Amino acid sequence: MRMVDLIAKKRNGNVLSEEEIKFFIENYMAENIPDYQISALMMSIYFQGMNQEETAYLTKYMVESGEIIDLSAIKGHKVDKHSTGGVGDKTTFIVAPLVAAAGIPVAKMSGRGLGHTGGTIDKLESIPGFKVELTNEQFIYNVNKFKLSVVGQTGNLAPADKKLYALRDVTATVDSIPLIASSIMSKKIASGADSIVLDVKTGSGAFMKTLEDSKKLAREMVTIGKQLNRNTIAVISDMNQPLGYEIGNANEVKEAVKVLQGERIEDLRELAIELAAHMTILAGIYPDYNKATFELSRIIDEGKAFEAFKNFIKAQNGDISVIEDYDKLPTSSYHVEVTSTARGYIHQMDAETVGIAAMHLGAGRATKDDSINHGVGITLHKKIGDIVKENEVIATLHTDKQENHEITKLLRSAFTINEQPIKRNRMIYDVIK
Amino acid sequence: MRMVDLIAKKRNGNVLSEEEIKFFIENYMAENIPDYQISALMMSIYFQGMNQEETAYLTKYMVESGEIIDLSAIKGHKVDKHSTGGVGDKTTFIVAPLVAAAGIPVAKMSGRGLGHTGGTIDKLESIPGFKVELTNEQFIYNVNKFKLSVVGQTGNLAPADKKLYALRDVTATVDSIPLIASSIMSKKIASGADSIVLDVKTGSGAFMKTLEDSKKLAREMVTIGKQLNRNTIAVISDMNQPLGYEIGNANEVKEAVKVLQGERIEDLRELAIELAAHMTILAGIYPDYNKATFELSRIIDEGKAFEAFKNFIKAQNGDISVIEDYDKLPTSSYHVEVTSTARGYIHQMDAETVGIAAMHLGAGRATKDDSINHGVGITLHKKIGDIVKENEVIATLHTDKQENHEITKLLRSAFTINEQPIKRNRMIYDVIK
Repeated sequence: MRMVDLIAKKRNGNVLSEEEIKFFIENYMAENIPDYQISALMMSIYFQGMNQEETAYLTKYMVESGEIIDLSAIKGHKVDKHSTGGVGDKTTFIVAPLVAAAGIPVAKMSGRGLGHTGGTIDKLESIPGFKVELTNEQFIYNVNKFKLSVVGQTGNLAPADKKLYALRDVTATVDSIPLIASSIMSKKIASGADSIVLDVKTGSGAFMKTLEDSKKLAREMVTIGKQLNRNTIAVISDMNQPLGYEIGNANEVKEAVKVLQGERIEDLRELAIELAAHMTILAGIYPDYNKATFELSRIIDEGKAFEAFKNFIKAQNGDISVIEDYDKLPTSSYHVEVTSTARGYIHQMDAETVGIAAMHLGAGRATKDDSINHGVGITLHKKIGDIVKENEVIATLHTDKQENHEITKLLRSAFTINEQPIKRNRMIYDVIK
Repeated sequence: MRMVDLIAKKRNGNVLSEEEIKFFIENYMAENIPDYQISALMMSIYFQGMNQEETAYLTKYMVESGEIIDLSAIKGHKVDKHSTGGVGDKTTFIVAPLVAAAGIPVAKMSGRGLGHTGGTIDKLESIPGFKVELTNEQFIYNVNKFKLSVVGQTGNLAPADKKLYALRDVTATVDSIPLIASSIMSKKIASGADSIVLDVKTGSGAFMKTLEDSKKLAREMVTIGKQLNRNTIAVISDMNQPLGYEIGNANEVKEAVKVLQGERIEDLRELAIELAAHMTILAGIYPDYNKATFELSRIIDEGKAFEAFKNFIKAQNGDISVIEDYDKLPTSSYHVEVTSTARGYIHQMDAETVGIAAMHLGAGRATKDDSINHGVGITLHKKIGDIVKENEVIATLHTDKQENHEITKLLRSAFTINEQPIKRNRMIYDVIK
């Protein structure tokens, strides 16, 4: 088998066989195939696509290039949740204790990563004392006992994906749905869960800007999961504006706690219950969607999800007093009000721009070596569809900087205000099974 | 300027600017841009193409990456001829002395290369004593005095093309018309001629199998030439069967000599006069096509082209007794007759298969280190449109092997014989100006 023939085959729009996909992944990892042939193949895939079998085989051999986490010591059906990423997304802090309280063991490994805010692990570190590193034994023990543990990602999961992604990043071959789908799914499958619920974001703050592309990506991922024997469901959710009202690290934990305490922050609560419902159905805990959403709402309202959250934090050495009284969470030195320059209805609120503003405040990392400032961030006071008066406060910057002129200007530019009333966004667009 | 942005720009179907093309060629040669980004760009060009300006700029910066031959010491308008390559193509040995006899100085640098037979230089070396290496001074002196000299290619012509081609060869990005066109033209332009006549082959033995693709390639090359101030014309000629009746090295020289002696080997004579006519018109020697073909035919028939050929060979130390009596040229130990297995008319004679058979005999090189056997080759006794009886000799193998069973079988497979009569092929399909 010659790599140049594989490239030509894909370039001509033909289907690569399992053997061919195995050949190029294994030999790329063994450094028998150079980067320049792989980048030519990736560009061919960009143009010619891959069918379901090819995408599943690519995922399979990326999974098999590294360690596969063994969760068999944890009793019960393990369901993982994964979001394709958006601004203000703190659903994990609600969904994980919620499904744990409903009886699903949640063994979550999370990354830090680059982005507008920190990753799940960074956000949890805004809770004083919280330990993200546990021994494998302690992790398993905690999941079995408290139904929930979240630790920093260790181990060498899907290194072929890591190597391919680094090459795609510098060769303009990232934006390919089958390649994105197999990249995400390889890491999820290597993480060892039995079933997977995907939260595929769509809109201005999402990787996929259009509903059509988001559905395509969701379908690809669901198909990969099924082909590799993981029951997989994808929820398509709105990311045309940030999720909830808080963007940052400590303030996102705070907003999640509010929802766990029963506060009606509608979009966030709706999405968390939606995701949790599919997880509990996959795990066989509830028979159908109506029963699941009814029971999960009750679990929140009876305080059981909040209880599970506190038990989890305490088990990882976190100070739960800052959870019970969230005003004790880290905060910033200054709180700067951003006002509206027009009156009318908010038609658009570009989520990506809001995210970039948060990153400029210090909430996220632009490069691997940047550190996170847990106390800074943005509080929105309005969402799409809301009416605003001129000079009304639409957002607050939590900042440690004295000068916030540029960030204020940037944040204002995210808002489009128009005199015509407009309907609020839907939260859930579709569920792909 | 970032290379990844250039790749994305071309991937999205946009036009690269002169600055961008200069940037990637110069930085690739300076090893500031890695192969894996260039191969991704080449694959994007494969899919998205390049417009005339982009193709001309690519050619220009490939030319400027190396030496540009200075032929200014040669008096007169220099016209180069280039063929895209086919089986049995010995037109250079006829065209060069023919136009030299008509008054065009011919300063030709030729390669050896890989192929079914040797290159021009290899074929000339079948003449005992012939020297392919001359000093620059001797080369210029010979052209001024004898109007014709052919030497082995020296110098570092278009090294960017060489580097790009080597990468394209292993990344399935060779088959792109703008890339092929700029590759050929960069070498031709660096060779220093004032005008260029291209012989673009079309058919089973050509790089371009269809007339449509051949015309596209021809148009691209003519446009590049004009954009870079070289008057350029392309002749589209038939390569659905070998040119003439001889394939090899010494036997191709022999067949060319026959034509120079006035023998009517129709396809070969027609193509040689056609190419020479365009060259002499570009050089301003004849006012129009009819005059040119008339005068050139006369130059052959009066023996002046043959005289020019002998002068050229003698000036480079070649033994002209083997030209005057071509049976003295190198030959093989065995002559094996290949007979027809059917009766009827020859409908097809796959030129590429005939070429491969010749290479198996030792007439060409499969790898750089192979040596050429000047005496071996194939003589065809029939061409497309000819009638054959069962068991009639259709070809002779000139071979140094005792066992020729496989090669005979292969050569037979090149012929398609059918009872229906069929017209002979046209030699010239089109002229692109």
